[in-house]
Amino acid sequence: MSKSQNIYDNQTFFEGYKKLRGNPYSANNVEEKPALFSLSPELAGKSVLDLGCGYGENCAEFKALGASVVVGVDISEKMLAVAMEEHPDIKFIRADMSNLSFIKDNYDVVFSSLALHYMEDFDAFIKSVYEVLTPGGYFIFSQEHPLTTAPIAGASWAKDENGNVLHYKLTDYSRCGKRSTTWIVDGVEKYHRTFSKIINALCSAGFTIETMLEPTPTQEIIELDKSWEKDFHKPNFLLMKVRK
Amino acid sequence: MSKSQNIYDNQTFFEGYKKLRGNPYSANNVEEKPALFSLSPELAGKSVLDLGCGYGENCAEFKALGASVVVGVDISEKMLAVAMEEHPDIKFIRADMSNLSFIKDNYDVVFSSLALHYMEDFDAFIKSVYEVLTPGGYFIFSQEHPLTTAPIAGASWAKDENGNVLHYKLTDYSRCGKRSTTWIVDGVEKYHRTFSKIINALCSAGFTIETMLEPTPTQEIIELDKSWEKDFHKPNFLLMKVRK
Repeated sequence: MSKSQNIYDNQTFFEGYKKLRGNPYSANNVEEKPALFSLSPELAGKSVLDLGCGYGENCAEFKALGASVVVGVDISEKMLAVAMEEHPDIKFIRADMSNLSFIKDNYDVVFSSLALHYMEDFDAFIKSVYEVLTPGGYFIFSQEHPLTTAPIAGASWAKDENGNVLHYKLTDYSRCGKRSTTWIVDGVEKYHRTFSKIINALCSAGFTIETMLEPTPTQEIIELDKSWEKDFHKPNFLLMKVRK
Repeated sequence: MSKSQNIYDNQTFFEGYKKLRGNPYSANNVEEKPALFSLSPELAGKSVLDLGCGYGENCAEFKALGASVVVGVDISEKMLAVAMEEHPDIKFIRADMSNLSFIKDNYDVVFSSLALHYMEDFDAFIKSVYEVLTPGGYFIFSQEHPLTTAPIAGASWAKDENGNVLHYKLTDYSRCGKRSTTWIVDGVEKYHRTFSKIINALCSAGFTIETMLEPTPTQEIIELDKSWEKDFHKPNFLLMKVRK
């Protein structure tokens, strides 16, 4: 199986990312996180695996929501060092999540927040998530929206002379594959997949699709900053809840 | 339930549409139709309902594929007059498919080709399709791609001075609702829905999602006419196969 890029251990990326996540008005905090938690089943007494756990903030919330076991997996040593320091009661494993063969137990719920767009072999990954779930278990994930990952030249907007957004420049939606983009640093490798590619991989692996979300900003947040309105042209995130 | 617009009985639209469908290199014939039939289960001995059957060409093919009963439904008198003349062995019903209460039998397979984007109340429609299906029955549909229906100002492309396509001008993807577009004639009413709106309506109605397709042109057709390449930036159609 392919090895994933470990961009989070790049020092410049790590520092930039740390700053971004700390911002309460980041798209993560405003759009992605509330949507992810809205999809969560009752966690009391459940075992939870978090793939691409980063700093472990979500792991801590799963625990606070009553999960009996929470295990976080991430490829980045720097991210896990922070996670372990901040959440000493949670088990973290440093590993490449594109190969889950190191996971010997089964879990009731598998979460993955904003990590799937780094996976090269999506079909194999989805199959392996299915394997680690208990029967009836849930897989809940978020990823960059396929309209964000589509353009080979990178996501961009057309604006008028006053800087007002006119439209999103959509290209290459039907061309699945690697995208090299600049996000904090150059050369971040991501993988673009169409909706049909994602849906068919989940169905083929045996999952039953339950819910899809493409969150939009609330009226409250738009009133604070009108620039959020452009997310109604092109959402930032795709989330799915599927069941084994 | 809302009444659907009957644009196909507009004489100008009808004539224009007739010409378009006759073209072997229309997007319908090159992309949509092969994809729709690729999703069909074995039809021998099955009962088939075709919602928005138009001229009844698909009905005739379902019959040729062995279906024991084929019933076509369409709102347009002009379309059905052609259908009845060309396919006297098939039963056609003139009705607004947004309300299926007139259907008293159950069907093994329900098809709907390029009609769903005319439906205002998608959730109610999907529920009523579920009702007319036999247990284990399939609903297979195609519709305009959500990226096509998204822009409130209508689908359009940015081109350079030589007429080469640069990108698709995406706007309003997250704003579900009515779209008034010009297609053959002015004022054709369609409804835009996001992927999540479509998926969640199907799941809520009780359907199991099996396959999604967003067809792209073949290499063969691109060699005939390079302008097909732009469909890799933004597909024309969305197709789904779901099961009761």
